[in-house]
Amino acid sequence: MDVGKIKTPSDIKSLSDEELIQLSKEIRKFLIEKCAVTGGHIGANLGVVELTLALHKHFDSPKDKLIFDVGHQAYIHKILTGRADQFDQLRQHNGLSGFPKRSESEHDVWEAGHSSTSLSAAMGMAKARDIMGESYHVVPIIGDGALTGGMALEALNHIGHDKTNMTIILNDNEMSIAPNVGAMHNMFGRLRTNQNYNRAKVDIDGFLSKLPGGHKLRDSADRIKDSLKYLVVSGVFFEELGIKYIGPVDGHSFRELGEAIETSKRINGPVLIHVITKKGKGYEHAENDKIGTWHGLGPYKLDTGEQIKGNATAPSWSQLMSDNVMALAEKDKRIVAITPAMPVGSKLTKFQQQLPDQFFDVGIAEQHAVTMAGGLAANGMLPYVAIYSTFMQRAYDQVLHDIDRQNLHVVFGIDRSGLVGADGETHQGVFDIPFLTHLPNMTVMMPKDEDEAAKMVYSAFNDYSGPLAIRYPRGNGLGVEVTEKSDGVPYGKWEVLREGQDAAILSFGPTLQPILEAQEILLKEGINIEVVNARFIKPLDTEYLNQLSARGIPVMTVEESILTGGFGSLVVSYFNDNGDEVPVKRLGIQDEYIEQGEVDLLLQEIGLTTAHFVDEIKQMVQNEKTED
Amino acid sequence: MDVGKIKTPSDIKSLSDEELIQLSKEIRKFLIEKCAVTGGHIGANLGVVELTLALHKHFDSPKDKLIFDVGHQAYIHKILTGRADQFDQLRQHNGLSGFPKRSESEHDVWEAGHSSTSLSAAMGMAKARDIMGESYHVVPIIGDGALTGGMALEALNHIGHDKTNMTIILNDNEMSIAPNVGAMHNMFGRLRTNQNYNRAKVDIDGFLSKLPGGHKLRDSADRIKDSLKYLVVSGVFFEELGIKYIGPVDGHSFRELGEAIETSKRINGPVLIHVITKKGKGYEHAENDKIGTWHGLGPYKLDTGEQIKGNATAPSWSQLMSDNVMALAEKDKRIVAITPAMPVGSKLTKFQQQLPDQFFDVGIAEQHAVTMAGGLAANGMLPYVAIYSTFMQRAYDQVLHDIDRQNLHVVFGIDRSGLVGADGETHQGVFDIPFLTHLPNMTVMMPKDEDEAAKMVYSAFNDYSGPLAIRYPRGNGLGVEVTEKSDGVPYGKWEVLREGQDAAILSFGPTLQPILEAQEILLKEGINIEVVNARFIKPLDTEYLNQLSARGIPVMTVEESILTGGFGSLVVSYFNDNGDEVPVKRLGIQDEYIEQGEVDLLLQEIGLTTAHFVDEIKQMVQNEKTED
Repeated sequence: MDVGKIKTPSDIKSLSDEELIQLSKEIRKFLIEKCAVTGGHIGANLGVVELTLALHKHFDSPKDKLIFDVGHQAYIHKILTGRADQFDQLRQHNGLSGFPKRSESEHDVWEAGHSSTSLSAAMGMAKARDIMGESYHVVPIIGDGALTGGMALEALNHIGHDKTNMTIILNDNEMSIAPNVGAMHNMFGRLRTNQNYNRAKVDIDGFLSKLPGGHKLRDSADRIKDSLKYLVVSGVFFEELGIKYIGPVDGHSFRELGEAIETSKRINGPVLIHVITKKGKGYEHAENDKIGTWHGLGPYKLDTGEQIKGNATAPSWSQLMSDNVMALAEKDKRIVAITPAMPVGSKLTKFQQQLPDQFFDVGIAEQHAVTMAGGLAANGMLPYVAIYSTFMQRAYDQVLHDIDRQNLHVVFGIDRSGLVGADGETHQGVFDIPFLTHLPNMTVMMPKDEDEAAKMVYSAFNDYSGPLAIRYPRGNGLGVEVTEKSDGVPYGKWEVLREGQDAAILSFGPTLQPILEAQEILLKEGINIEVVNARFIKPLDTEYLNQLSARGIPVMTVEESILTGGFGSLVVSYFNDNGDEVPVKRLGIQDEYIEQGEVDLLLQEIGLTTAHFVDEIKQMVQNEKTED
Repeated sequence: MDVGKIKTPSDIKSLSDEELIQLSKEIRKFLIEKCAVTGGHIGANLGVVELTLALHKHFDSPKDKLIFDVGHQAYIHKILTGRADQFDQLRQHNGLSGFPKRSESEHDVWEAGHSSTSLSAAMGMAKARDIMGESYHVVPIIGDGALTGGMALEALNHIGHDKTNMTIILNDNEMSIAPNVGAMHNMFGRLRTNQNYNRAKVDIDGFLSKLPGGHKLRDSADRIKDSLKYLVVSGVFFEELGIKYIGPVDGHSFRELGEAIETSKRINGPVLIHVITKKGKGYEHAENDKIGTWHGLGPYKLDTGEQIKGNATAPSWSQLMSDNVMALAEKDKRIVAITPAMPVGSKLTKFQQQLPDQFFDVGIAEQHAVTMAGGLAANGMLPYVAIYSTFMQRAYDQVLHDIDRQNLHVVFGIDRSGLVGADGETHQGVFDIPFLTHLPNMTVMMPKDEDEAAKMVYSAFNDYSGPLAIRYPRGNGLGVEVTEKSDGVPYGKWEVLREGQDAAILSFGPTLQPILEAQEILLKEGINIEVVNARFIKPLDTEYLNQLSARGIPVMTVEESILTGGFGSLVVSYFNDNGDEVPVKRLGIQDEYIEQGEVDLLLQEIGLTTAHFVDEIKQMVQNEKTED
């Protein structure tokens, strides 16, 4: 069957296991070829080819609700629901999303991006079904990593209590993003290697049958067997929570998958099917990945699996931030690094290897990561929490209630701040400025280059106190040489990069580069603007702002972030409260979610390019002159 | 021993069990008498008298770290650490906090207020100890309700995996705030009623000894005993997570508590002691509480336990909001209510009783509550999530990523918005405006009285769409009569309550009353101000703002909320972006956490009273005239 010809799930319902095996091969070939060009979450998808086929064969989407946790493993689901022809535009601007999207298909009943939401969503859908007296299956598909996210466990507690009908698919591939950690992971490991219940039952029957008068012991034996069931089946963790456990099931066997799913449909109440899959299956380069580099990636060479790098020569921001922290941690064992399941993405693997006692990968558990840092800080340590901007949203209350309110000295390295590109709405780091700057004790910073980053990290651990957030973007540094780190950065002070008198642009991080380009272009046209590195987003450099106000020139703020409650609004509010009548042009992201696409294209659409800056400044200066 | 004479925990270390029993009686008497006057979390504290004494006898605070989850059960801890003489000012302004507070005592090593943070904090402290090569005990004390919060489960997963030394005290009183719910609660129930392991072991030994040749079966029997241990002890849930289980232990027996604690100290790795306590023990009125009215409360009559009510004749805001939603839900089964463990506080018990199929108490699980609402909405239901402002912080990412980003029609009833008084920093609802208004699709509203609340709730379910937040304060309504609800409230439109031409005050909710008083006072002095009910905080009524700008009068915004990123900043940003030079005086809470105290006193300090409004307006009008 030609992958491209599949239009609806009904196209595959009548296929035999043999035909499905053949189709699986073709789907794998299709995905490996397409993702080699577009990039994507190839590893996770190669692991669930058979599972997704089995789900669509044995359930009836969209009547039955397939809910993909995180959602990056839904490529096969997209193929089976008629979207194979859009894979050339996968994760590209105005192309196919890398995640389920309700606007793309009626089969995408729930959107995700962040982890551990599927069980709660499933509970809502199942309750909706039951209240309205309808009849369909609700099927959350969740990985072993996502299951350790606190929200998923909250949901399990509720599902088990209410005995709500649903079939939970636990997709256990022994890795989430990085090799999975945690006690639940260990438990899954024991489950995978356990003898199964039936075999144990036979053993016990045999044991008793050898005893003289053994038949008289039937009642006692049954009681023992019941207890053994708990030991040997060992789905006891789930059974204790009131959820029926089926497994482990070979996630690449259509027979085993089909039997388990059909069994689950006959059971009243919640069922969990423990499916063992191999991430990257069918593509040796991805299969052999032991640390997670094949989780989400860009284009690669088909034959060698070699990842095609961009032209950047400088190291990534993640790498340089981690290296800076590690250099300090080597000399001070109070400095410890914490990551919620992102040792690879946050480039902390070297730290992990070289300073294992000062490193904690806590799994997909952002809340725990942050509050654990609080406990460390309360006892005199200097914790560094490396966390993606968008995932820090999950720990907002922990940052507020546990860190900021107690004014603890914790350094947050906020990775992927600003636009991230191909991952789209759920991954753009555009909310951290509004959600951090209103916390009373918080400092929020963003360095302009490698040198300033090194100094800022130094100061964060040595010179400053209280909760500190250092934002840094996805992508690579500028290739700037690092000078003496211990010079640090004076707290709360901005830096004037170019002096000028016609207008001032205040910005920080990556947008400073196109602003400097705009400055040069404008200079040639006789407009002389001041460019300011507003590296402290909170606190504002009020001394500079006062001086700026006194000079009476128009001001522009630029931020690759949502405008409401953002940097520009802080500047405007400051001027207002101070009684300064300074008009401020605020550039940034309006009240909307930003879809996937190359960052350059997105910036073009949003209006944050050199050309936009030139135009806006010209207009501002023109208006100013007209008013004068 | 006189309760008031205890200065440090060492004062009780040498007491015999008999003396401790006597002291427990005196502490209970002390607490019941003090809380009758001040109010407080009396029920929870009466349940942990013996437990707290045992912890301080067998551990060595502050070297050993006692970490109280939530923290409202730390009154005995405060007594034992020399603070008995401050109980007359418990929870009062500048008095003793109702929660642990680091500034109060070196024995308060961790502050809380929100639930489920203790295990993560403990993990941080234990790791700090281990890295620095120090030696002390880390002892988180967590309730059965708090343990079901997702963050606590994330921490358990990490603790069990790393086998980090600590003694977890599970304080199981079968109630958290309301009767506890969830599968874990059911499991604890099974644990409590189970035969204990030793008894089972005896049974098995007896069983085998009766068999001919039974002695030959030693190996097999041992294996069976091992398995039985799992069944009968049934701490298997924790054991599966790598955490040693001890219990259940009678939480009112010094002997049992002492033995369990001393055993835990000898074990290497994490231990959980399952302690059974009775909430309210020793005070019949609190002991007999079955629904949670004795959780946190105001003053009461000592003899009858009757709670002393204020003078308010109107129903509470929680009650009137719940009644409004219930009236709609009775006619439309798509309308369902969700509470994270607050059926009593949010006054949803009548809803729960009368429409049980449309009601969900999900336990202390704010994240799950919100995303479950998303699942319901995705399948066509109209969910209402009643949640305290400060606890909604825990679900920020769920509101953003699951509800707002998918633009789902979920109605949030944000209870306790604004200052709450006696519970202090952790409970003031002063962050929801900044953390909700930057979400692109969110609507944020606050009604001025009962009538508007009824209409707003009607419109929220019938006229509006997308994610909607209706804020309402702690305390009682104004006693205003409700007229025809289905008239609704026009979306995004503010209401001019008083017309005037000298200045305009924009505000919403409870602060409108003192503003109207200020308006009358000013009118007598010849200053005529416009008072506007800015019931939509987002979106702003830009039509009105444009008109206001054209009139060129000074503007004041008033919000019982943090100013950064707040309502005033939205107004200022709007005027700025529109090119309007309108000076705005922003009144609200500066960049700080607000301690406990009567709301009136707090408002006095912050500067949000009638007198402040009068003074500020006079000054504004004066300045305006000077400038003219």
